[in-house]
Amino acid sequence: MRQSQLFTKTRREAPADEPSKNAQLLIRAGFVYKEMAGVYAYLPLGLAVVEKIKAIVREEMNAIGGQELIMTALQKKELWEKTDRWDDEKVDVWFKSELKAGGEVGFGWSHEEPIGEMMKNYITSYKDLPIYVYQFQTKLRNELRAKSGVMRGREFVMKDMYSFCLGQKDHDAFYNATIEAYKRVYARLGLGEDTFITFASGGAFTQFSHEFQTICEAGEDAIYINREKGIAINEEVLNDETLASLKVTKEELTLVKTAEVGNIFNFGRQKATDLELTYKAETGEDVAVWMGSYGIGVTRLVGVIVEKFSDEKGMVWPVSVAPFYVHLIGLNNEDNAVKDWADGLYASLKERGISVLYDDRNLRAGEKFADSDLIGIPYRIVASKRGQAEGTFEVVTRATGEVRQLTEEELYADFDASLDT
Amino acid sequence: MRQSQLFTKTRREAPADEPSKNAQLLIRAGFVYKEMAGVYAYLPLGLAVVEKIKAIVREEMNAIGGQELIMTALQKKELWEKTDRWDDEKVDVWFKSELKAGGEVGFGWSHEEPIGEMMKNYITSYKDLPIYVYQFQTKLRNELRAKSGVMRGREFVMKDMYSFCLGQKDHDAFYNATIEAYKRVYARLGLGEDTFITFASGGAFTQFSHEFQTICEAGEDAIYINREKGIAINEEVLNDETLASLKVTKEELTLVKTAEVGNIFNFGRQKATDLELTYKAETGEDVAVWMGSYGIGVTRLVGVIVEKFSDEKGMVWPVSVAPFYVHLIGLNNEDNAVKDWADGLYASLKERGISVLYDDRNLRAGEKFADSDLIGIPYRIVASKRGQAEGTFEVVTRATGEVRQLTEEELYADFDASLDT
Repeated sequence: MRQSQLFTKTRREAPADEPSKNAQLLIRAGFVYKEMAGVYAYLPLGLAVVEKIKAIVREEMNAIGGQELIMTALQKKELWEKTDRWDDEKVDVWFKSELKAGGEVGFGWSHEEPIGEMMKNYITSYKDLPIYVYQFQTKLRNELRAKSGVMRGREFVMKDMYSFCLGQKDHDAFYNATIEAYKRVYARLGLGEDTFITFASGGAFTQFSHEFQTICEAGEDAIYINREKGIAINEEVLNDETLASLKVTKEELTLVKTAEVGNIFNFGRQKATDLELTYKAETGEDVAVWMGSYGIGVTRLVGVIVEKFSDEKGMVWPVSVAPFYVHLIGLNNEDNAVKDWADGLYASLKERGISVLYDDRNLRAGEKFADSDLIGIPYRIVASKRGQAEGTFEVVTRATGEVRQLTEEELYADFDASLDT
Repeated sequence: MRQSQLFTKTRREAPADEPSKNAQLLIRAGFVYKEMAGVYAYLPLGLAVVEKIKAIVREEMNAIGGQELIMTALQKKELWEKTDRWDDEKVDVWFKSELKAGGEVGFGWSHEEPIGEMMKNYITSYKDLPIYVYQFQTKLRNELRAKSGVMRGREFVMKDMYSFCLGQKDHDAFYNATIEAYKRVYARLGLGEDTFITFASGGAFTQFSHEFQTICEAGEDAIYINREKGIAINEEVLNDETLASLKVTKEELTLVKTAEVGNIFNFGRQKATDLELTYKAETGEDVAVWMGSYGIGVTRLVGVIVEKFSDEKGMVWPVSVAPFYVHLIGLNNEDNAVKDWADGLYASLKERGISVLYDDRNLRAGEKFADSDLIGIPYRIVASKRGQAEGTFEVVTRATGEVRQLTEEELYADFDASLDT
């Protein structure tokens, strides 16, 4: 798209009331707008990133048999009372309101209960199982504090998946398939190296649950890791028993700050028992369904990626989630021949299916470069008067700073090669 | 996808507490799940329809220069007080709650105020205008009554677009471009013939506003139409003055029941004046922006389409929004040769990029046909033992009931021809 048409503008300074680096950069570059603390609107560039993350997650969830649906924000009090999670003493992040028609409603901070309740309509026999469903849902959580930008929102997008199985064996198989799918997601987002599957407290049904934690200075968690042994332990469960069971000593572990980017829970049969969600077994017996839940914080990942992939000039998007692949900068706009040349490259990049933001604005080169660095699109192509005289474009890789002078043919060959991978 | 894998099941009876035809059919066919009155979750088949409608709307909004973003559900009290729309006496559909951190918040039933407020960050000079932005947002409205199924939700998806112009001339041009874009949307949804651009009450700034009303027995509106003259008038503004200005007599008009599927508003400079959203004109003067808003009820359209395109057997989806293009029914599953033949057709339809739901379940033919009629996919292909002996598939067009016996080659030729149009 032409940058002259994009309604957002960059700004030099971050807003005074925004303490987090990720939101500062995202706001300055026009990716998000802060409605209130922990509540951010996603503008065209930011929405593009969110949609790219969702597309990757969707592909991987579909690949393991997930079926997409979308539950509701409005939630029934009676349902959450069944599992004793309506009371503000038990769950401290509820937003609640009164229905004009009478009665209280809650706003979805989680969807385990409604999705379990709904499944009563579709699960009757053992033949109906397993079922795996997921959604991308806007969660509303009445957090007391929200100082981590888009990494901890009062309103945020989460992918939550739920599994309904006959018993532990099937559950474990899907649980493990999800772990592998999650690893693929984080690898595709460029976070694979620094994301650890971490032992965390397990709740009522299992000794441990698993979290996916990404090393990140701005994260709110801390874990102990040993890269060689591939072990990671949340500090909340770091005790002698855990160390013994994982065959590691405290001395072999390093403490790192992390952000939780995913979690997976095994509910056993407890949640379905509370909800009275059962299936008729082959024996004729009514058996509570074995449930699991699997979350990925989609908008939190936007924040984590910004925190990890940015420098003093701005953001550095991985190709997989960048809002555009190429940032084409047209210089010397006043020279018609140069402008036509840049316009032509813009048209032909689009024709080749390469997504491109074209800075066609009448601004000084320095301003355009500063904006481009801030926005952080992977490849910058500069069309200038000097370049035209030499028959080459300047191609700058945002992540490495590498600068190359390429002819149009070399440019296409380069993109064809890199887009094939 | 294989129907044996789809977790939803059809049901013979509608739930007792569901009065509307659209929700009855959508629930029976497994497209939606009723969380509470006016609050519906969208299951895989229903979500597919919603996404197809959104894709059509998105295409048409992008074509007239719309830029997509997504605002937030949580809303600031202070902002809505500026336009005097926080008070429950003034707006009777607010859901409100208390922030744990202190203060009240509202849940977005509309986004005119926050989007206008946000634009202060991006509009400074006359050079920044015009700007057109839109979103697909889940609106929350505390309706006293919700008896029209997905046609009037307490929680529903709306496309809302906003225009920011220098003055009336630019506004009018975009307003008219939007009217044309909306006509294309309704035509593509199969509602073009029965959708009327209707004169309705205009509010403070203009004599009339425009609504898009679709003839629909289950609709909550009533309009007077004259097809020949292409005139439609909402009953709320039917008076001598209106009749005179539109050069039509009461006798020439017919009263029809309708559902409002879109509306467009001209705010003049009033909304921006309230919000203090101004631009610096060429003269150096600060001028309030001329604003408009343009809505399309996405999930309401799901309901309208079901109300209009259904028969005693079930739903009849237009091709443009059907969850799948083909419903392949495999009969005589017990015969391996027939099953292989059906499996083969399933694979090769998918390979050709034709979306297909494959009923591979071990059920009687009658049950499969009843489910297929209820779900309402445009084309049914039946693979049976008899057909295999004759080398043909039975192809049934859901909308017309037309039955044809086609060879696999004839089938592809037929689809290639119809998909080209």
